[in-house]
Amino acid sequence: MFPEVTAADEAALLELIFEFGVIGATPDGGVCRLAGSPADAKARRLFSSELKALGAAIELDPIGNQFGRMLFGTERGAILCGSHLDSQPTGGRFDGALGIAAAIVAARILARNSYKFRYRRDLILCNWTNEEGARFTPSLTGSSVFAGRMTLDQALRLTDANGETLGRALSAIGYLGSGTAPKDAVAAVELHIEQGPELEGADVRVGIVDRSWAARKMCLCFKGQPSHTGPTAKYQRRDALLAAARFVSLAHDLAEATHDAPVLSIARIENAPNSTNVIAFETRLWVEIRHSQESACETFGDRVLRLAEDEQNLGGCQVATEQDQLRPAVRLDPEGHRLATEICGRLGISWKSMATVAGHDALALSQVMPSTLIFVPSVGGISHSPKELTKPSDALTGLRVLVDWLHLRLLDEAAH
Amino acid sequence: MFPEVTAADEAALLELIFEFGVIGATPDGGVCRLAGSPADAKARRLFSSELKALGAAIELDPIGNQFGRMLFGTERGAILCGSHLDSQPTGGRFDGALGIAAAIVAARILARNSYKFRYRRDLILCNWTNEEGARFTPSLTGSSVFAGRMTLDQALRLTDANGETLGRALSAIGYLGSGTAPKDAVAAVELHIEQGPELEGADVRVGIVDRSWAARKMCLCFKGQPSHTGPTAKYQRRDALLAAARFVSLAHDLAEATHDAPVLSIARIENAPNSTNVIAFETRLWVEIRHSQESACETFGDRVLRLAEDEQNLGGCQVATEQDQLRPAVRLDPEGHRLATEICGRLGISWKSMATVAGHDALALSQVMPSTLIFVPSVGGISHSPKELTKPSDALTGLRVLVDWLHLRLLDEAAH
Repeated sequence: MFPEVTAADEAALLELIFEFGVIGATPDGGVCRLAGSPADAKARRLFSSELKALGAAIELDPIGNQFGRMLFGTERGAILCGSHLDSQPTGGRFDGALGIAAAIVAARILARNSYKFRYRRDLILCNWTNEEGARFTPSLTGSSVFAGRMTLDQALRLTDANGETLGRALSAIGYLGSGTAPKDAVAAVELHIEQGPELEGADVRVGIVDRSWAARKMCLCFKGQPSHTGPTAKYQRRDALLAAARFVSLAHDLAEATHDAPVLSIARIENAPNSTNVIAFETRLWVEIRHSQESACETFGDRVLRLAEDEQNLGGCQVATEQDQLRPAVRLDPEGHRLATEICGRLGISWKSMATVAGHDALALSQVMPSTLIFVPSVGGISHSPKELTKPSDALTGLRVLVDWLHLRLLDEAAH
Repeated sequence: MFPEVTAADEAALLELIFEFGVIGATPDGGVCRLAGSPADAKARRLFSSELKALGAAIELDPIGNQFGRMLFGTERGAILCGSHLDSQPTGGRFDGALGIAAAIVAARILARNSYKFRYRRDLILCNWTNEEGARFTPSLTGSSVFAGRMTLDQALRLTDANGETLGRALSAIGYLGSGTAPKDAVAAVELHIEQGPELEGADVRVGIVDRSWAARKMCLCFKGQPSHTGPTAKYQRRDALLAAARFVSLAHDLAEATHDAPVLSIARIENAPNSTNVIAFETRLWVEIRHSQESACETFGDRVLRLAEDEQNLGGCQVATEQDQLRPAVRLDPEGHRLATEICGRLGISWKSMATVAGHDALALSQVMPSTLIFVPSVGGISHSPKELTKPSDALTGLRVLVDWLHLRLLDEAAH
């Protein structure tokens, strides 16, 4: 027997997505809810008020992760269920918010039905701080601190482009906590939008993630010499922006010419002094390389670095590698995956196993506990964009799978 | 007979350059005195206190140009002598400040000797607002408003990268004036550093500018589509930063392959949303093309625009030309030029006629009155850089030429 999902629950999910979507809304239909911003605070307050309405025991930890514990049972530890409320500057209404809204509605459904079942685990709803890594790099900050993969001190010192730290930003919006993150979690689950075109292409409603791609993330700094753009003689010019631009162009040429090349993205640039009349003396590029295999990220990354160091293209500039991190490919929990496939089968929902190219909090958590990540389709495969859209029917399908998955995990019967 | 320049005057010039150089000083030995900044205000106050010490009649006009009139005589109008106190973010201590400091010391020398001569013109010392165009684009703002080439309203509305207008910035530092710019000026002169290697290469102490290069200045906006850098499929990507980088690389290739190509510089870029995880949807580039001939700027600029519009390099992006201005090549006053050559000859100073590649306030003024521009060498041809340096002996040579030039212009005898 499973808890019933009513039409009112479905309406509640869509309404919650709408409510989060108006916080930090942009005129083009997207959202801008950067971590630590007033909009982030407003979304957090909405989450917190929903937790209170659920009767959850609330904790805010020192990196701003929000937890709401539903006291279902403590025999077998607790299950974490959540996602994130921060967004990209050009974010959509579903990335992160869907997982939070579905967790809230699922908790409501499970609570309403809990008298019928003997749950042996607590359910803990979570909002993880700075998943996006847009304002503060790197991403997955809150979940990485929780998983012990980043120290609290490192995380609080992350600095945005204006020199503000994550710690000060959280403090300013009232979300630098002094509470304790749960220590009894035995598994985690996250419902998220796919952000790529694979489910849509296969005409399948649910993606059950079994692994992630690896990623190599680098920051390269090209160093030239400032001088007047006019009278400075050609032989005297050390143009860092030109060296950086040549590198961007050549790196993409290399990717196009390489068999089974990783996905290469260079999306962020900082140029100094960035004045029309002064040849750039310092240009930084953030380079992302993604592939299902770590080794491919490493090999291709090394080739990209050699390109950056090519003297001919540097034109008298120097280049330094300021960051170079390899995010490993991760395997998600096979048992949680199996459970999700069974639920889809029983509900008659089409599904496929797939890898995630994007990073998610569930990947950070998977380093310390069994973690499960469930995708629903993104129209056109577009996300991080005002055009991001998950159809209501797909969001509701995701909710149904999540409710049943949590139900079985909270019961923790031998059969499952 | 000419006014005597004493060792004390020479020391005063070097000391004034030093005094201006500590205002907005950067740790690397340069200065950052952006127009409308607190450092700009501080430099303006020093200029103003020097004008007061000279007994000059001070005016501050509505675009913040500072004028100090020495009441030598009014029979034949007035002579403008000045430069600018704003700098690039990576500015040096001589660009602009030399011309202001030399004007102050020259005024002191002329005043001290004026009882011996019957001057028939007033001398007006000037500090022109926002010559650099670093924080507020375009450059030569104050002198262009004075010359009627830009309206006051346009100038006050120029906006920096943070959305602040020049009008508000000047008001905030107390330099939005209500005074009247002089209407009786009959000629202008400016002493400035060369900013290129030509004088040093020719081993000549003074450059007497007879013309300027033309410049074409464009702002191109590449438009892509925001989406996730990870799972977004290759065929879906519209990467504005990649299109812009390919353009920068190709435009420089074109310049290298072109006979007698203009000087091409692309020094400023704005990229949105500039987040490591979001493919750029809007990347702006500021393109500068300089050549002695306007026609060469036009022809090469058109070829550059065609490159920007090349579909293959755009990779699905669009491009729009948001600004496209042609700054004409200007001829400076032949009479003022002749006067300077005579003075150099009499003083035994080596000199050459030359063009200026860079823009200067004297060029804006030359559109409404005879204008003269005198250069002294920059070590290594470097400027807009903390490494900018004019040797003390060269600065003093510039002062001597300026004093005699002003002396003859103030006398306005038939012989000259």
